[in-house]
Amino acid sequence: MSAFGFELLGTDGAARRGRVTTAHGVIDTPAFMPVGTAATVKGMTVEAVEATGAQIILGNTYHLMLRPGAERIARLGGLHDFMNWRKPILTDSGGYQVMSLSDLRKIDEDGVTFRSHLDGARHALTPERAVEIQHLLDADISMVLDECTPFPASEEAAAESMRRSMRWAARCRAAFDPRPGYGLFGIVQGGVYPALRRESAAALTEIGFEGYAVGGLAVGEGQEIMFRVLEDTVPALPQDRPRYLMGVGKPDDIVGAVTRGIDMFDCVLPTRSGRTGQAFTRQGTLNMRNARHKEDTGPVDPECPCPTCAKHTRAYIHHLFRADEMLGPILLTRHNLHYYQALMAGLRAAIEEGSLDDFAAAFDADHAHPTP
Amino acid sequence: MSAFGFELLGTDGAARRGRVTTAHGVIDTPAFMPVGTAATVKGMTVEAVEATGAQIILGNTYHLMLRPGAERIARLGGLHDFMNWRKPILTDSGGYQVMSLSDLRKIDEDGVTFRSHLDGARHALTPERAVEIQHLLDADISMVLDECTPFPASEEAAAESMRRSMRWAARCRAAFDPRPGYGLFGIVQGGVYPALRRESAAALTEIGFEGYAVGGLAVGEGQEIMFRVLEDTVPALPQDRPRYLMGVGKPDDIVGAVTRGIDMFDCVLPTRSGRTGQAFTRQGTLNMRNARHKEDTGPVDPECPCPTCAKHTRAYIHHLFRADEMLGPILLTRHNLHYYQALMAGLRAAIEEGSLDDFAAAFDADHAHPTP
Repeated sequence: MSAFGFELLGTDGAARRGRVTTAHGVIDTPAFMPVGTAATVKGMTVEAVEATGAQIILGNTYHLMLRPGAERIARLGGLHDFMNWRKPILTDSGGYQVMSLSDLRKIDEDGVTFRSHLDGARHALTPERAVEIQHLLDADISMVLDECTPFPASEEAAAESMRRSMRWAARCRAAFDPRPGYGLFGIVQGGVYPALRRESAAALTEIGFEGYAVGGLAVGEGQEIMFRVLEDTVPALPQDRPRYLMGVGKPDDIVGAVTRGIDMFDCVLPTRSGRTGQAFTRQGTLNMRNARHKEDTGPVDPECPCPTCAKHTRAYIHHLFRADEMLGPILLTRHNLHYYQALMAGLRAAIEEGSLDDFAAAFDADHAHPTP
Repeated sequence: MSAFGFELLGTDGAARRGRVTTAHGVIDTPAFMPVGTAATVKGMTVEAVEATGAQIILGNTYHLMLRPGAERIARLGGLHDFMNWRKPILTDSGGYQVMSLSDLRKIDEDGVTFRSHLDGARHALTPERAVEIQHLLDADISMVLDECTPFPASEEAAAESMRRSMRWAARCRAAFDPRPGYGLFGIVQGGVYPALRRESAAALTEIGFEGYAVGGLAVGEGQEIMFRVLEDTVPALPQDRPRYLMGVGKPDDIVGAVTRGIDMFDCVLPTRSGRTGQAFTRQGTLNMRNARHKEDTGPVDPECPCPTCAKHTRAYIHHLFRADEMLGPILLTRHNLHYYQALMAGLRAAIEEGSLDDFAAAFDADHAHPTP
């Protein structure tokens, strides 16, 4: 087990090519983390996830603390053993899902109390308990408990929310048991207000974390504002630590965020879209339920080397979705995750070659094509 | 492409070890055919199906004729190309599902008319059309259109139904386009009445088929009656053709039917049970949703070499079913199909060694154990 670390291998403008080292292995950045909410990337075996090239997945503390429970997962050897995923895992703190999924939530200085959306049982999540749960889960990367400031929020409300999150971040840091290969990331908040974002980044840097996340984005503000906030925030973060943009995003969001210096991403989009029939391709998105695919013998994405595209036609995928067959979501989730990992591999190669501008321009041109 | 054929490699009592040769490959018998109703074995990639050892799958004419349609599948290269399954396929005639799934069905001498359970559209299925559809699907083995006589039925009703099925069988034979590697199987009916079963077997043998199925069983009559009907029927079938017991069954049904001379089986049980959380194991069946599995770090079946048992615990499978995660059905379907194929491999080896009685006795003893 090696120390938790981040190595900056190269840069291209603001973009960075790096490598995160954790207890369960390395993560080449820029990296995309598939979401494995309830100890499974929905519809994917762990072998299939690994075959996409993913080097890290994300688990959701909120779901796992409710079912099967953090103490149970700890007794079963931690989340890696439980789901038999041997590579790194990042867990969120649970705060975001508490606010979006649970009932009767109440937030105060101590933390948040809520009722489970599953059975109505009462639970509390404090900064200390959020860190403890993530320790029980054996997450390589834990996240501080924070409040994801809603959008829109007044500057006053955003400031108040952010400053409480910073006090929680300090409590999380104090509660975190330092172990080689394990890290705790702080989360920058502050809404769309540059001064608040810089204040938050400075507060977190003062506390000191193994990595820094940008939170509170992709909540309805739109890509232009999101990119502007990144331009305000990223320069205020330490150069020698990984930077993680939470919950983002669409492929063009990721390309734009990488050019602005982000190293890590997670999003439900490739998996959720895979279940509803939306395919990501190198020529834009496709709705596989659309009747125009019904006798199309071409693959979902002619340029994709994934097993779904190598072995199956659009006509077949279309049929599977029309017939509500599980194999449709299975095959399309697999393709979408391959697409996302191929995008990250392309971004990493472009940064290494110093050709990220060309990559981004070609990406924009491809995705401006009408869908075939 | 070789001629359709059946080679009898050995016997042990009434049981047979054989090999069916079709346009898309060979099938070692006794064989179990996973059910791929709508051009997919539910929840399984074709690679995963192949990895279980399955050499043939079954497709359902009723479902495929309604969606995506037989003519469409033909334009897309047939069912093998459509779903990318390169090994043999057997299709049923559609008659059974018409009677169990469709609305407003009417049966007369010409065939059956019905309304689709999907959209209410009116369809007709005659012996000639059933054969044509299966040709369009490119089934290696086609089945004659028949009426699955309900249970219970009076001897008079069973006779009338069976004799119409025999007239339909002759029309199917006449309509079937003989091609090397493709075969048409007749179906013995006659309910629980030995004289009717023998009359049906004689009528079919007189017409002449590449194989003979026993139909109208596993419809509520119970295992004892089913075995008795097999004992009445099987000796009346040609020795030099494969024998297929349709829609059967539980593992002990299969062991008993193999000892009575049956070569081929199909059943939704391993796949359907896999979706609802029932596991077949060498020590009996388990309900994976049961709370006693929640912290059990052992595999579903300690004696099973399948990837599910090699990689995952009962505790994890239990969690996946409790959380309604797709991966639960995926992993358990995979295990159940491996279990069934391992059972067939064990039966084949026992027949080759002349030790089927020992195999059957050990099987009964294992499955009499309390579930662990």
